Amino acid sequence: MISFASDYIAGAHPQVLKRLVETNLEPLPGYGGDIYCDRAKEKIRTACGCPEVQVEFLTGGTQTNQIVISTLLREHEGVIAAQTGHVNTHEAGAVEYTGHKVLEVPQRDGKLDAAEVEGYIRAFYADENHEHMVFPGMVYISHPTEYGTLYRKAELEALSRVCRENKIPLFLDGARLGYGLMSRGADVTLADIAALCDVFYIGGTKVGALCGEAVVFTKNNRPPHFTNAVKKRGALLAKGRLLGVQFDALFTDGLYFELSRHAIEMAEQLKALLHEKNVEFYLESPTNQQFVILDDGQVETLKKQVSFGFWEKYGSDRTVVRFATSWSTTEEELNFLRSVL
Amino acid sequence: MISFASDYIAGAHPQVLKRLVETNLEPLPGYGGDIYCDRAKEKIRTACGCPEVQVEFLTGGTQTNQIVISTLLREHEGVIAAQTGHVNTHEAGAVEYTGHKVLEVPQRDGKLDAAEVEGYIRAFYADENHEHMVFPGMVYISHPTEYGTLYRKAELEALSRVCRENKIPLFLDGARLGYGLMSRGADVTLADIAALCDVFYIGGTKVGALCGEAVVFTKNNRPPHFTNAVKKRGALLAKGRLLGVQFDALFTDGLYFELSRHAIEMAEQLKALLHEKNVEFYLESPTNQQFVILDDGQVETLKKQVSFGFWEKYGSDRTVVRFATSWSTTEEELNFLRSVL
Amino acid sequence: MISFASDYIAGAHPQVLKRLVETNLEPLPGYGGDIYCDRAKEKIRTACGCPEVQVEFLTGGTQTNQIVISTLLREHEGVIAAQTGHVNTHEAGAVEYTGHKVLEVPQRDGKLDAAEVEGYIRAFYADENHEHMVFPGMVYISHPTEYGTLYRKAELEALSRVCRENKIPLFLDGARLGYGLMSRGADVTLADIAALCDVFYIGGTKVGALCGEAVVFTKNNRPPHFTNAVKKRGALLAKGRLLGVQFDALFTDGLYFELSRHAIEMAEQLKALLHEKNVEFYLESPTNQQFVILDDGQVETLKKQVSFGFWEKYGSDRTVVRFATSWSTTEEELNFLRSVL
Amino acid sequence: MISFASDYIAGAHPQVLKRLVETNLEPLPGYGGDIYCDRAKEKIRTACGCPEVQVEFLTGGTQTNQIVISTLLREHEGVIAAQTGHVNTHEAGAVEYTGHKVLEVPQRDGKLDAAEVEGYIRAFYADENHEHMVFPGMVYISHPTEYGTLYRKAELEALSRVCRENKIPLFLDGARLGYGLMSRGADVTLADIAALCDVFYIGGTKVGALCGEAVVFTKNNRPPHFTNAVKKRGALLAKGRLLGVQFDALFTDGLYFELSRHAIEMAEQLKALLHEKNVEFYLESPTNQQFVILDDGQVETLKKQVSFGFWEKYGSDRTVVRFATSWSTTEEELNFLRSVL
Repeated sequence: MISFASDYIAGAHPQVLKRLVETNLEPLPGYGGDIYCDRAKEKIRTACGCPEVQVEFLTGGTQTNQIVISTLLREHEGVIAAQTGHVNTHEAGAVEYTGHKVLEVPQRDGKLDAAEVEGYIRAFYADENHEHMVFPGMVYISHPTEYGTLYRKAELEALSRVCRENKIPLFLDGARLGYGLMSRGADVTLADIAALCDVFYIGGTKVGALCGEAVVFTKNNRPPHFTNAVKKRGALLAKGRLLGVQFDALFTDGLYFELSRHAIEMAEQLKALLHEKNVEFYLESPTNQQFVILDDGQVETLKKQVSFGFWEKYGSDRTVVRFATSWSTTEEELNFLRSVL
Repeated sequence: MISFASDYIAGAHPQVLKRLVETNLEPLPGYGGDIYCDRAKEKIRTACGCPEVQVEFLTGGTQTNQIVISTLLREHEGVIAAQTGHVNTHEAGAVEYTGHKVLEVPQRDGKLDAAEVEGYIRAFYADENHEHMVFPGMVYISHPTEYGTLYRKAELEALSRVCRENKIPLFLDGARLGYGLMSRGADVTLADIAALCDVFYIGGTKVGALCGEAVVFTKNNRPPHFTNAVKKRGALLAKGRLLGVQFDALFTDGLYFELSRHAIEMAEQLKALLHEKNVEFYLESPTNQQFVILDDGQVETLKKQVSFGFWEKYGSDRTVVRFATSWSTTEEELNFLRSVL
Repeated sequence: MISFASDYIAGAHPQVLKRLVETNLEPLPGYGGDIYCDRAKEKIRTACGCPEVQVEFLTGGTQTNQIVISTLLREHEGVIAAQTGHVNTHEAGAVEYTGHKVLEVPQRDGKLDAAEVEGYIRAFYADENHEHMVFPGMVYISHPTEYGTLYRKAELEALSRVCRENKIPLFLDGARLGYGLMSRGADVTLADIAALCDVFYIGGTKVGALCGEAVVFTKNNRPPHFTNAVKKRGALLAKGRLLGVQFDALFTDGLYFELSRHAIEMAEQLKALLHEKNVEFYLESPTNQQFVILDDGQVETLKKQVSFGFWEKYGSDRTVVRFATSWSTTEEELNFLRSVL
Repeated sequence: MISFASDYIAGAHPQVLKRLVETNLEPLPGYGGDIYCDRAKEKIRTACGCPEVQVEFLTGGTQTNQIVISTLLREHEGVIAAQTGHVNTHEAGAVEYTGHKVLEVPQRDGKLDAAEVEGYIRAFYADENHEHMVFPGMVYISHPTEYGTLYRKAELEALSRVCRENKIPLFLDGARLGYGLMSRGADVTLADIAALCDVFYIGGTKVGALCGEAVVFTKNNRPPHFTNAVKKRGALLAKGRLLGVQFDALFTDGLYFELSRHAIEMAEQLKALLHEKNVEFYLESPTNQQFVILDDGQVETLKKQVSFGFWEKYGSDRTVVRFATSWSTTEEELNFLRSVL
């Protein structure tokens, strides 16, 4: 069935898979010590416009959040996140599993506001009993957010300043980073992110890879013995090549950006189509996820013909649903959706 | 360079990769809910000769050990393992990271002895203060072991009986299971393992897959909310198809066994070759790993021509090294080794 | 300096200390296996009006919350608590340290509302992705709350019903339980609490003991190997008598209730005094903690003469402060406060 | 019944209890911020002959081991301990509960040998795969050991040197430190320990207090935000005075040493008595614990008249038992034991 259910419905971009096939029988060292990991790291450093950043590959998004947060936080610290942040809602308590608290802060369209974060931190230190509380030790944001929204550059700068002033890292979850960078409305580049964040990751799983996320530590701040920490959390792949080859392919000749741009182009066509059909938007995002409100009857009919995501009930007889495009979405699929809406 | 360094130097068996390519663009549900995962599970159940077993896919060996052990142990329990057991030595403390102790028991050739395990448990309960101690809550064995050795069926039966009598599960780490099953000396079948163990896994990473291990719960004992536990530990792949397609391919037309048999055939030729060259064995195993003792000078010369593994120093001027074959080892590679030894 | 800073400014009630002295040289078994622990448990069972409850002694409140919550929650569960709940704010992340999430729910005057909790749980199960989320596995309330407020019996009954219907335990933090039971406005008895909660504790540290909390499991639901769990968390006292003797004294001849009543009597006089002085209340509670608003100048002057607690800033030049009475508060102290206010 | 079962059968030394009574009604700040904690710390610094050391009070031995080890170890490290070390055997896995491994090293009479520790560390770093292993990050010893034996000064110096050379802390568990310092055979002083160890604790629970251990960080190495770490582990007493007053009393006029000397004097009389009765020693220690071998029949008869500890079976019809003296042991008790042996 034609599917707009998520951005991880297909395998890998064909060019990525082709490289896995081509390199398949080469004998390579394990655990990420292979030449493809090295090349991919080099290309990512170049893409970030910063030869100094440290790059590490991990397998999935929750794993990456868990490892980055738990290795960078100190004993007495927790991580500030939007109430709707992925780490606070849909990761089964993966951060807490490592012994650290997620410190909820209110959000708007999935975004944290620098002033609010600053206020939170100020109030924390003003509290006489704060030694009995969890210290704010990091700020976590997602870009695009869980609602497909984007931070403006000025917003990122403000968050970055608050973090710097309070000597805590700013961590950007880029599970869908490509779709954010290629959004028509984007005023934030990969180099901006590398400059403004202390650590972030470039999502592969949702942007062309079978699996894989590239973590970028921008301030020479990769935790010591990082491989050991990854191994200890069960996350070290014996065949690290699986990640190296994929990211090498994604960052060769701008493939990562090109396939992201395609998803955005498809999303723009999707939005036009939804407007054309007078579908009510719950949240019209500048990236690859669109949230619309359908009558429950419409949902029932439609879901027999295409796949999409259920978000939440909206009043008694309507539902918020999500349509996602990705690098694999085709115009034919959109035409089909048009025909059945 | 030609490599006998490990059994994870190559990518996936070509047939496995072919299936990834063929299924690549099919839209599929995430998180293991796809048809290939279903098919692979069904084929594994059949291969185990037991339609009742529960099968789950995970990405790597340490991850699998960590998740199986930490979800099956109860609060007050630890896991009994050989001193040389992988979980006790080379997993960076992944079990302890989940809050549980590894209870070391002496080993012989990497194997646990049922009588010794029984003695350990009996001594534990005889201790007046055992409520202040870590309860033995599981027995972990690897088959083949870290030294390439195998349990005889009678040995497994004895361990199984001790576990059953003490109401604790027997967990078999089968990271290299195929090589154990296809060993010429093997008297243990996959069905035997399914019958004698409470949980075990069929290693993919070292036996033909890019990544992936198939965990088999044999007593309807999969922990409740297992997906949640996997997610919480950062181990749930969004594109579960990556594991499903691979195991579906490995368990189609006996591929898993066939490629394992090939590795064993290569190992037998390797052993003959090493004997022919009068190389001293440290441990001549019936599976794909062979441990031999070389003069340090010989090591220095040889390592310029082929890759192999360093195990440990042996006296002042000799070294124990490991040669591993795998599904990807060729006769040409063995001939080359013969020519340079 | 005369102090209203907290309810743990003095040592133990003299009668409690007297019993420690009288029993001091008796040789007794360790780890809670002594006759005073047994007697204290028996007296608490009687006070609860329920001979079946299981009683265990721990040393402090955070420790008790941490142990009760982490031993009763299952792997995939977190604990629902008011945003202002002690476990969510002032315990340094002790719950998260055990790997479990605190699930924040809004509060009113420190209290959870049954309908809101029910809505939270219903929404959780309605979410298609709830297997990727932290399951609500317990409801935590404090009584009196952190604001000194009390649940009405009907409110407790409603919470108890929601928990029962969802098969999760209701846990009542009774760090100041005596002051709640003896409040003039209380319509909840110890027997009510034993009937409505699955587990609760009777605070000793803040109500007459040097240290110690008595946990009561009311549904034959004490976690198995509880002593082991306590030991593993570093919380098992070698000289369990320290807790047994104190609780035995507190529950002999109604001392616990009598000294709680005294604190309430002092709190009522305190409230009258504050009204008499036209001090503005921030929250006038029916128990031993009173929150009032003072000008910053007044705070500066007053704190040179008596101790009290700073709660939070209130606008630009006023502050919410807390005055607490306890079993050790005297009329002389109140008179002194009157003279300097 | 007269008891030699352990060194925690009685309450507190009368002088300690007297001080608790005398200070009972003074209003004091909580959480260790009181004047008695300050005074006790000052006196301990003086007793250590080192005004620079940092002193913190905790409640019990397992708790202290757990907190010291888990706050000083880094993410990738475990703690080296003797196989018979308390942390490895009788603390219910409290170290592993914090996510860290105990690295077992063989022992002799409960003691670690510096050369063996050095060999362990050297072998670790020589292993090519050590990044996949748990790093040795601390050495834990107990003094007196679990067998009542003592390190010679030269042995401590050697261990201290190995630790210093490898830049890892040496931690001495002094649950029974007083009995070690006052042993007739001791050549190690409190000042020696403060000079040679990076952290150690002075046991109170087994040496005159109701509860309490004084941790001494000797190298300005108290972990940052230590109070927060203690709170997070549920170990922070609201009434820190309970520990402060007791240690203040113990370190006033040499009481700690005097009562320890008494226990040693009683132990020497006990040893003489046991020799006199031709009881076979399993381990005759220079401190307060003596391990002897009794016929099972003798055990049955004796245990009706005095309490003692069962250690382990010794062959088919004999048992190793432990007799412990303490500050509370009297000559009358020894005479009674003589009369019934």
